Parts: sequence; structure tokens; C-alpha cells
Amino acid sequence: MAKAPVLTPQAEDFPRWYQDLINKAELADNGPVRGTMVIRPYGYGLWERMQQEMDARIKAAGALNAYFPLFIPQSYLTREAEHVEGFAPELAVVTHGGGKELEEPVVVRPTSETIINDYFSKWVQSYRDLPLLINQWANVVRWEMRPRVFLRTTEFLWQEGHTAHATYEDARDYAAHIHRNVYADFMENVLAIDVVLGRKTPRERFAGAVNTLTLEGMMGDGKALQMGTSHELGTNFSKAFNTTYLSKEGRQELAWQTSWGSSTRMVGGLIMSHGDDAGLRVPPRLAPVQAVVLAIKGDDAVLAKVREIGERLTAAGVRVQVDDRTDTPFGRRAVDWELKGVPVRIEVGPRDLEAGTAMLARRIAGGKEPVRIESLAELLPKVLEEDQALLLKQSRDRREARTSDVSTVTEAAEAANAGGWARIPWATLGQEGEAVLAEQAVSVRCLIAEDGSVPESDDEPGAVAVVGRAY
Amino acid sequence: MAKAPVLTPQAEDFPRWYQDLINKAELADNGPVRGTMVIRPYGYGLWERMQQEMDARIKAAGALNAYFPLFIPQSYLTREAEHVEGFAPELAVVTHGGGKELEEPVVVRPTSETIINDYFSKWVQSYRDLPLLINQWANVVRWEMRPRVFLRTTEFLWQEGHTAHATYEDARDYAAHIHRNVYADFMENVLAIDVVLGRKTPRERFAGAVNTLTLEGMMGDGKALQMGTSHELGTNFSKAFNTTYLSKEGRQELAWQTSWGSSTRMVGGLIMSHGDDAGLRVPPRLAPVQAVVLAIKGDDAVLAKVREIGERLTAAGVRVQVDDRTDTPFGRRAVDWELKGVPVRIEVGPRDLEAGTAMLARRIAGGKEPVRIESLAELLPKVLEEDQALLLKQSRDRREARTSDVSTVTEAAEAANAGGWARIPWATLGQEGEAVLAEQAVSVRCLIAEDGSVPESDDEPGAVAVVGRAY
Repeated sequence: MAKAPVLTPQAEDFPRWYQDLINKAELADNGPVRGTMVIRPYGYGLWERMQQEMDARIKAAGALNAYFPLFIPQSYLTREAEHVEGFAPELAVVTHGGGKELEEPVVVRPTSETIINDYFSKWVQSYRDLPLLINQWANVVRWEMRPRVFLRTTEFLWQEGHTAHATYEDARDYAAHIHRNVYADFMENVLAIDVVLGRKTPRERFAGAVNTLTLEGMMGDGKALQMGTSHELGTNFSKAFNTTYLSKEGRQELAWQTSWGSSTRMVGGLIMSHGDDAGLRVPPRLAPVQAVVLAIKGDDAVLAKVREIGERLTAAGVRVQVDDRTDTPFGRRAVDWELKGVPVRIEVGPRDLEAGTAMLARRIAGGKEPVRIESLAELLPKVLEEDQALLLKQSRDRREARTSDVSTVTEAAEAANAGGWARIPWATLGQEGEAVLAEQAVSVRCLIAEDGSVPESDDEPGAVAVVGRAY
Repeated sequence: MAKAPVLTPQAEDFPRWYQDLINKAELADNGPVRGTMVIRPYGYGLWERMQQEMDARIKAAGALNAYFPLFIPQSYLTREAEHVEGFAPELAVVTHGGGKELEEPVVVRPTSETIINDYFSKWVQSYRDLPLLINQWANVVRWEMRPRVFLRTTEFLWQEGHTAHATYEDARDYAAHIHRNVYADFMENVLAIDVVLGRKTPRERFAGAVNTLTLEGMMGDGKALQMGTSHELGTNFSKAFNTTYLSKEGRQELAWQTSWGSSTRMVGGLIMSHGDDAGLRVPPRLAPVQAVVLAIKGDDAVLAKVREIGERLTAAGVRVQVDDRTDTPFGRRAVDWELKGVPVRIEVGPRDLEAGTAMLARRIAGGKEPVRIESLAELLPKVLEEDQALLLKQSRDRREARTSDVSTVTEAAEAANAGGWARIPWATLGQEGEAVLAEQAVSVRCLIAEDGSVPESDDEPGAVAVVGRAY
């Protein structure tokens, strides 16, 4: 009799597989208030590593971290017309504080453009104060009607960057810099997720932006996930909040602004990009635990050896965990590490010791073979880099294999509904075709230029729309 | 004519000095919703360094980070009677979400014991699951009637640890371990703040705890600041949430719990411990910028030299910032770095270059003298460690000089009102004396044992009460 699978197979029911994996790998639980989530230690460990890698890139881009309040006066949101229209339906409103009804209700931030501009307008006086480059790691709240853990949650964790610049060009270039050198670099080189970099159509733009740059990843079921966005805000918010500066020439000028965000949704993207029927597969450069050293049995020589291997690998710069919980059956522990997607398992039992070897099980490339214990410290960094590259290749191959070039709106919808993406000339599709697709829950994920770069305007000649269903 | 002081002098008006410093050193602003704050990049940089140092100690204590929701169903808080009584007056309540009135209002977490226990009760099944050691970095909200930036704010940032143990002894020892090896170690060795470790009286205990351990620091004006607390919760919350486990002997047992927290209030403590009339003084081990290298003038040789010094000191492990903003007058920049409390300034002008020297200005020990540029990389780490030790010594000396032993309640109140602390036998003071002091806004900061250690019970013979006014 075949063993019952640990997870619902992907091919049977992808959303169910996703939820199973999150439960069994102990990544998260649903919170008691609808749409909220509890991020468990292993899931939070993934997010912490994302934060570290992102934070280093954000700082390298010159932005400094700061913290703005959770509570925003309701009136602030109404100052930018499109912004309030976009966010009003999703707001959580605090009406009582300290046992009393508040004179003005406050909203829990859905994003911080408004409150941050209130301070930018005080801090920015002269051209010398620009560019002002701020980032914030915070929780935000957007009331979700159809919540799904990590992907759409009422509360989520994210970073939001907010900047002010002296000129349109400087703001535009900075938004593009974040898009390419922070987000794409992180997603491709750490998350090992292939992303298409493009420009949102006016319909899909952030509420209050004049241009939204996006990174779209293809998940295991062929649907798209918006992994992060970088917006040019033009002078929309600086007008609303009077964020002006005195130029070198002595004139009062409006500041040009950007904002950009990425969130715990990336954890969902990680799962749906790299997971398989045995569980998660974590790219080595991200993995909080890159290698686990398992004692098969609790005898003293084995326990001493796994600890020694752990120390040697740590010294070689590998993030290691030693699993010496031999009161839990070995098989159960092995399945658990597989579920959690730790890239490499090193298994040591009494017979291995005699032979001077350990079993090396590779979660990403697959396979299991004996290797000499002395060679592990040299071998592992190479194995991990191989596996990192393999994950990115698999992600890229999938996107290429499941994207087709089409020339009609009907074909585009068919491709999307068959679990893939379509490329269609934007001149053929247009905003009307986009509206037709929307009726079938198919959307333009982004526009790309003819040469694959990011279009510089909404109507760049030769631009191609990438179309698909999305999370 | 003497220059106007940058800050209101401490001796003239300490609270005003505190507020001036926070504004002028660009640490924080008041938020638009009463009692909230905007933490500006330099202030947030201090908090980030606190987080790094604390997080390493928390992880060394075996706790793992996780994240629980901001929103807690109102009914959860009522399950533990003392807890709800303590927090009900401070709650912010969300009544509307997604455009509708909610069926059950939700509260914004004032602390997370209740929601975390809801999950502990699911996760903890067997003795094998214990101890369960969790920490969370998060924002919390407690509606503040008399807000003061960093010290009492409606929203603040903190870490809150929550643990479950199989036995009373294990929980008690863990709360003490956090108190001593995480909090006291960090405060003394990084913040350079002398803290008295003691036990809270029943009156001052956390709502829902059976024992609260505290760390009390003496501020520049002789008042006390509670810098952090570690609580034994007994089985109060495990009873309320049915957090039980199957023991080795096969019995269902209640888990024993702890919780412990420290917050952005520590930034306020840092300012009030080490600040002087020229601004903040940041202990070198904490400082995001330990040394700033200033170009006095914008000539090419000077600029090249300050950058070279910056690189050399960075290579020597010093956290350095190069200040080459020579379009701002040198004097203004020097005052600004003094305000921000950067431990060491290295000032380089054309004349220094000729002599092969730079001026070394020490913010903490004071003084300014020329030093050979080649010796800087060797000299600086020593200077920084000296300054670190000096700050702790000054903090300790102040506490000792301004603490007096008294034998009556009247004397205790006098000592507190004169700007210091009193030590009085707890047997003399007692809960009645404590109530009398409370009428004058004087409180028992903690009880300490005769030998200076932390008392093991509320009525330990020979215990001494440390009494003072507090923030």
C-alpha cells in the first residue's frame, strides 16, 4: 500500500496544496480576526532573512529607515482624490480610544503616503534637503474580503519607501533604480524567482501614482503574483500636502516623489514558485537553515559526530542546524525537514560513522548519496550555489514554457485560462480589450517594451502586454 | 555677548531640555494623532542598533521570533480578570472595517498575552513541546492621557517575549535569565546605563502577573525610569486559555508562563541618562555612527583625506560617517554632531594636512587635541571603549550619590522630592507607607534583597524598597 501523501498534490488542487503546506511546514496560522495571520517561527525566519537582504539593498540605495504612526487622521486620506477612492473601501477605523469616542476617527494605515507627506512638507525646505530618501518596515491594514494567508491578509508586514526629489527625472530614475537594483536583484538573486519587469497599465496603477513599475512572477500553477511595485507619484501628493522647496534659483517648487513596497506576500510567492508535492524548497541564499545535520540514532558517537559536523560547517560559513532530537523517529524528522524545504540534509548513523561517510540528501536537485565527512565543508558551499541556480532556472523555464504569443483578445483569455501567460501587442489589446479580459478575471500584468525593457510611457510604440490570471 | 545655548539648560527646565534635544537632534516629532510619534532616521537608527543587540541576546536565550496579529477580539481580553482591568482604560477600539460596522469590535493590541495564549493552547500538546520560547518585535497601542515622546506614547515599538514551561521552577528561572542576561546585560554593557534589578511590589505588578522583575535606571534629574520588565505569569493565562500539556507521567498539566518586554522608551532613557546641555551622548557600543570625519573646507586634498580616513577606520571595524558637506558652515555641522552625540569627531582642514594630524574631539570624555592621522585606526577603538566605560561610571556614580538610606516614610518622600532615590526597609514602609507615598506621586520602584540581589518573594525578610519619583 502506497503511503498517503503528506500534502494534497499540486495537480489535484493547487490552492489546497498551498494551504496544506503552510499548515504542515508550520509557516503560519489564520488569526482570530478574519483575514489576519499568525506568522510562526519558521515562516517568520524566512521573512527575517528577506528583511535582512532587502534592508541591505535599500540602505545601499541611500534610503534611511524611520517610523511613522500607525494611526492616520481620517481627513488626511481625503486630500489626494484618487488615493482615497482606492483605499476607502479597505480601511479599518478606530472610533474609540481610552474609553471615549474620538472627536475625529482615525484610520489604521493602509499605506503611509499621506502621513509621510505631512512630515516631508515640514522637513523639506531647500533644494539642499533633497533627495529625501526614507524607508519604513511596518504593519499595514487593508480589510480583505477574500483573504488568503501571505497573499491577501487584512494585516501584513512590509517595507514602504517614500522619497522626495527636486526634479521629475531624478524621481523617475530613483523609482527605476529601486525596481531594478533593489527588487529585481533581490528576487532573482536571493529568492531565485524569475520576474518580468514592466509598467502597469493606467487601470492597474497604484491609487495616486502617475506610473507604477511592477515585478511579476509566475507561480507553479501558471498564475501571476505581483511581487513588488515602485511608483512615480509625480507631484500628486506634494500638491495635496504642499511639499515644496526653495530651488537654487530662489523659486518655490513642488517636490517630485516616489513610493515603493514589498511585503510578506513574497513568502507566498516563494512557496508557490518553488514548492512541490513534498513541501517547500527554500533557495539556499535565503534559507535561515541551509543544511540540517541529523542524528539517525541517539548513540553517543553519532551525537558527537553530528555536533562536530555542525560546528565545522558553521565555521565554513554555512547556516546549519543540528537535529539531535532522537526521541522523535528519524523518518518523521526527515519528512519534516523536507516539508520545510531545507536545501540539504546530512544524515549520520552508526554505519555511516564506520565508513567515515554521511548521507547527503539534496532537497532541490534531488537525490541522496554517501559523501566523505571530511569533504563536507568544501562540498556544501558548491552544492548550495548549484541548487540556487537550479531553482532560478526552473522558475525561468516555467515562465518561458507557459507564455505564448497571441494576436487576439480571445487567444489571450484562452492562454490565461489554460494556466499560463500570453503576450499580445498593446496596440491590439488596448484599454477596451483589457476591460473585456477583466470580465473573465484576466488582467494585464504589465507592459513591456519591444526589446523586453520597461516602457517609458503608457503608449510607447511596439509595447507588449503580458496577460494572465493573478493572485 | 555669550552665544545663546542650543538647548534649554537641564538645570533650568529638564523636561524642556529633553524636548529641545529631541527636536534639535532630529530624533522624533509628535504625530498628528495625539500621543503618537514619528521616529526620524537618526532616532530610528538608535532603535535599530538596540534591536540588533537585543535580538542577538534574545536568540542566545533560545527564543525564536514570530508575529501575531495587531487586532485582538475584544472578548479575549476579558478572559483574564486582572489583565482586562489593567488594560481596558487604555484600549483603542476598531468598530468599522471594510466600510461596515464589525459584529464584534476588535482592539488594537496593548500587549499580546491573550492572543498568543490562544495559539499556545493549540501548539502545546505534550511535554516535548516545552519550553516554548517566542519573541515578537511589534508596535502596540495604549491610549495615553499625558503623552511624552519615547517615554509614554499612544503607539510604541517594542519586543515582547512569551514563553510556556512545564514547571514553575523552569518559568521562574527563565524570567530571571531574561532579566539578568538579556536586559541587564544589554543596558549595562551596551546602553551604559546603571540599572537596579529588583522585584515589583504587588501594587506595581503587571496586570495578570504573579511576579514582575524590573530594571530601574536613574535619569539625569534623579527620577526613575522603568527600563524593562520580565514577568512570571504563573498559570493565570494558561488557566484562562486552557494551555495544558500531557506530562511524561501521562497527566494533563497547566503550562507555567512568562512574558517580558522592552520598548522605544529605552531611547528616552538613553537621552535622559547621558544627555547634557550640548545634546545627546551616545555610548560607542550602541552608536550607529561612532566617529564622524569632518572636512573643514572643501579643498580637494582635504576631501580626499577625509574619505581615506573614513575607509581606514571602517576597515578597523569602526562605524564611521564622512561629513564632506562643505557647503554648510563647519561650525554648524560640528554643533549638529555634538547635538546628535556622536562619540568622536575627527576634523581635518588644510593646516592639519600639512602637519599630518587631525583634531580629535571627544564628545563623552570631552577635550580636543591633534593626533597623528596614521595613529587613528589604532587609537580609536581604545578611545571608544574608554568612553563606553566612562558613561557607565557616570551613570553609576549619579545613582550612588543621589540615593540615600532613610528610616521613615516622610524622609523617603523628601529624598524623592529633592530629586533622588531613597532606600527604606520594606518592613518599615509596607503597603500602607507605599499608599501614602503614592499620594505624592512617589512610588516604590522595586524591592531588593539585603545583599542587593532580587528578592524571591513579596515578603522576603530584610528586603529594602527603592523609592523615587518616576517617568
